[in-house]
Amino acid sequence: MADRLSKKLDDAALDQLFRIARTINVWTDKPVTDDQVKELYDLTKMAPTSANCCPARFYFVKSDEAKARLKPHLMEGNQAKVLQAPVTVIIATDMEFAEHLPTLFPHAPDAKDWFADPVVKETTAFRNGTLQGAYLMMAARSLGLDCGPMSGFDNAGVDQEFFAGTPFKSNFICSIGYGSEEGIFPRSPRFDFDAAAKIL
Amino acid sequence: MADRLSKKLDDAALDQLFRIARTINVWTDKPVTDDQVKELYDLTKMAPTSANCCPARFYFVKSDEAKARLKPHLMEGNQAKVLQAPVTVIIATDMEFAEHLPTLFPHAPDAKDWFADPVVKETTAFRNGTLQGAYLMMAARSLGLDCGPMSGFDNAGVDQEFFAGTPFKSNFICSIGYGSEEGIFPRSPRFDFDAAAKIL
Repeated sequence: MADRLSKKLDDAALDQLFRIARTINVWTDKPVTDDQVKELYDLTKMAPTSANCCPARFYFVKSDEAKARLKPHLMEGNQAKVLQAPVTVIIATDMEFAEHLPTLFPHAPDAKDWFADPVVKETTAFRNGTLQGAYLMMAARSLGLDCGPMSGFDNAGVDQEFFAGTPFKSNFICSIGYGSEEGIFPRSPRFDFDAAAKIL
Repeated sequence: MADRLSKKLDDAALDQLFRIARTINVWTDKPVTDDQVKELYDLTKMAPTSANCCPARFYFVKSDEAKARLKPHLMEGNQAKVLQAPVTVIIATDMEFAEHLPTLFPHAPDAKDWFADPVVKETTAFRNGTLQGAYLMMAARSLGLDCGPMSGFDNAGVDQEFFAGTPFKSNFICSIGYGSEEGIFPRSPRFDFDAAAKIL
């Protein structure tokens, strides 16, 4: 039988996804179109979540007005680069994701009950919403877009500004666009295999 | 200036990473070599984490002995597929990741102090360890390997069996190998853009 996923991608693709891609601090003027944002979402949404719960919500902050709403909640060192980026997505989590399971996981009519325990629900929401945040970054890179992810902001302030009256909570934010070489930090060291992994 | 990340990957690559790839329940006999496991880690480790904190730890359960240690902690419905898979990785989180920041983030000697608050530390560990779990799955798919991620296991039991005496906690597990078409569920629906995203 042929392998389902054909073959290893070529080195240029692996470089683009993992090895050359870097966290960006300065952006070129090249815009990101709304069609690209939708293409990005359409890839992101396909990757797996537990019971297909899909708890992430993506708010793409693109207009000057929306950036002005985001700015006061950012750490000072992150403000200039977010204002300058073509788009910054707030990756949020729908803490009441389980309400959608009758639609998202139709073959298990009781799936909603699996998340009745509040700790299980919160853990599932955060874990799977975060997975989807990573999928978004990998999807961006696969579309030739650079990423600048950030945790340095006031989550409560962002939630109040963007998500009041909803069960959504901000997780992290990520600028997206075409990065300049300028302002990229020297690559920090990574753990060798034996320091972070084991084959048992 | 040329774009840093060259171009959008071709459709075959986007299919392999996002659109054709599926969660696998039945595995072919084709093995996964230790060299592939190390290649997988070497891609995974390059993707971004907050302050390069790299909190994920990867235990690749491959031998019959190690699978027998994992089995009693799995939900019954997951046992057969894990025993059958060439390898199942336990994605764990080092809750004391901050101890490594002097090595991992050398240009900010005070980075360890940023995570002194226990809630910030735990949230950072879980968020970034989970991002790395997603990177691992995307790296596997980019190497032509299928994934079968699972949350259906007893985390406390796995932690006791594999991580006693360490600050590591299991997050989720993921089988890796070459998937059979057999046992793949029909694709569950995804949210349309407007149901999960907004451009502001």
